[in-house]
Amino acid sequence: MGEFIKRIDQAIEALRKGKFILIFDDDKREGETDIVMASEFVQPDSIRTMRQDGGGLIFLMTSKEIANKLKLPFLADMYNEIDEKYPILKELVPNDIPYDSKSSFSLYINHRKTFTGITDIDRSMTMRKFAELTKNIENITDGNATKMFGKEFRSPGHVPICVAAERLLNQRKGHTELVISMMKMAGLTPAGSGCEIMGDNGKALSKEKSEEYAKKHGLVFLEGKEIIEAWKRWSK
Amino acid sequence: MGEFIKRIDQAIEALRKGKFILIFDDDKREGETDIVMASEFVQPDSIRTMRQDGGGLIFLMTSKEIANKLKLPFLADMYNEIDEKYPILKELVPNDIPYDSKSSFSLYINHRKTFTGITDIDRSMTMRKFAELTKNIENITDGNATKMFGKEFRSPGHVPICVAAERLLNQRKGHTELVISMMKMAGLTPAGSGCEIMGDNGKALSKEKSEEYAKKHGLVFLEGKEIIEAWKRWSK
Repeated sequence: MGEFIKRIDQAIEALRKGKFILIFDDDKREGETDIVMASEFVQPDSIRTMRQDGGGLIFLMTSKEIANKLKLPFLADMYNEIDEKYPILKELVPNDIPYDSKSSFSLYINHRKTFTGITDIDRSMTMRKFAELTKNIENITDGNATKMFGKEFRSPGHVPICVAAERLLNQRKGHTELVISMMKMAGLTPAGSGCEIMGDNGKALSKEKSEEYAKKHGLVFLEGKEIIEAWKRWSK
Repeated sequence: MGEFIKRIDQAIEALRKGKFILIFDDDKREGETDIVMASEFVQPDSIRTMRQDGGGLIFLMTSKEIANKLKLPFLADMYNEIDEKYPILKELVPNDIPYDSKSSFSLYINHRKTFTGITDIDRSMTMRKFAELTKNIENITDGNATKMFGKEFRSPGHVPICVAAERLLNQRKGHTELVISMMKMAGLTPAGSGCEIMGDNGKALSKEKSEEYAKKHGLVFLEGKEIIEAWKRWSK
C-alpha cells in the first residue's frame, strides 16, 4: 500500500513538472492505457510523442465546472435536443457503448491562431491556450466565459474536448475522470491532454507492455483503481 | 505532360489494388500531403500506417450525393441551426479558417460492433463498413438509407466524416474533393480514408520530404493541380 501512495505522489510531482504519466483504466472497462499530461505544459513535441507512441485520439479533458461556465454541451445531449430537425441523429443514438452508459465527448475546437489545426504546433497551441482560458475564467461569474472562449477558439476543429462527470470518480471511472481527479490532487489547472496507446496487433497496447514502456521512458504508471483509492482519501 | 497522365493512371491502379497514394494539395492552400486509400480496402495495418507515418487526423471522406442520401449534415450548418439553444456555437463560429471558406466536417461515427472505437481494428472496421454501406445504398431511393446507417453506426464516435463539395473540384479544392474525384475516376465506391502527414518540426511534412517518403515506399505522389487537370479532362 505504501508503494502505491508513493507512486501517486510521484505522478503528482511529474504532472506538476509538465511530464507525461500513464494511466490504465481497468480490465473491466476499456482496458486501455492513456499517456497524459497537464494541458498547460503541452508543447509541439508533446503532441509528437502522443501521436507516435500513443497513436489513438489526441484529446483535451476538462471538468464539469469549467464546461458549465463555458456552456460546453455533451454532444450526445446536443444531438438529443435537435434530432427532430436532424433525424439522422436519432438513428445514430449511442445507446450501445459496451463499456459505459454515456459518451463524454463535447465539441471539437481549434485555437483561432492555428492554421490547419492539425499540426503539432497547432494542436499544442489549442491545448495550452485552453488551459490558459481555464485559469482566466476562474473568477468569472457574469456569464462572460462563453464569449471569452469564442473570442479565442472556433468549432468545428481538430481537438476534441471530453468533459468529466460532475461528481468525478464517484460517478464515472473513465480516463477523463481519472485525469481530472489527478489534476485536482496536484493542485493544477483542471485541463488534461492525452492519447490512448495502441499496440502493433490492432488492439490497445496491453497493460504489461504499457508498464514496460513506462519503465523504459522513466514514466509513472498508475492503474485506475489506485487513483480511485487516492481520490477517496483526498476528497474525504 | 505525358509523365503526369502516367502518374494519374498509376494512382488509379494503386487505389483499385487497395494501396495508399499521396496527395499534396497546394502551396496556396493547406500545403499538406495526405496519405489516402479507398475505404473499402482499409485493414487494421492501414490504420497503423496512417497513424505512424501520417500522424494527423485519420478521417473518412464521402461525396455530397452519399451524404444527402444519409442526411449527413455539415457540422457548421448544424451548429448554425441550433445556436439559439446553444449560444456557445454562435461564439465559436468558424468564420476565420485561413485556407478555406468552409469546414467540410460532418459527424464522427463508430461502427456499432466496435469496442472503444479507437483501436486499429475498430477504426478500420468503421471505415470498411462505411464503404460497404455506401455500396448498399446505391439503389436506395425511398429514404431508407438513414435507417440503414443508424442500424450499423453510432455517433458520437472516433472517425470523422468529411463531405466533399457538391460540384467537387469545380467548387472546392481540398483533400476531400481531390480524393473523391480520384475515386470516381477509378470507378471505386466514393469512400476514401486518409491522414495528414506530419513532420518532426511541429509542422506538416514538407512537399519534398513527402515525395521522398513516396519514393522510399513505392507510392504514387500526386499534386492537387494534377488531379484537377485530370478531372477537367475526365468530366468533360
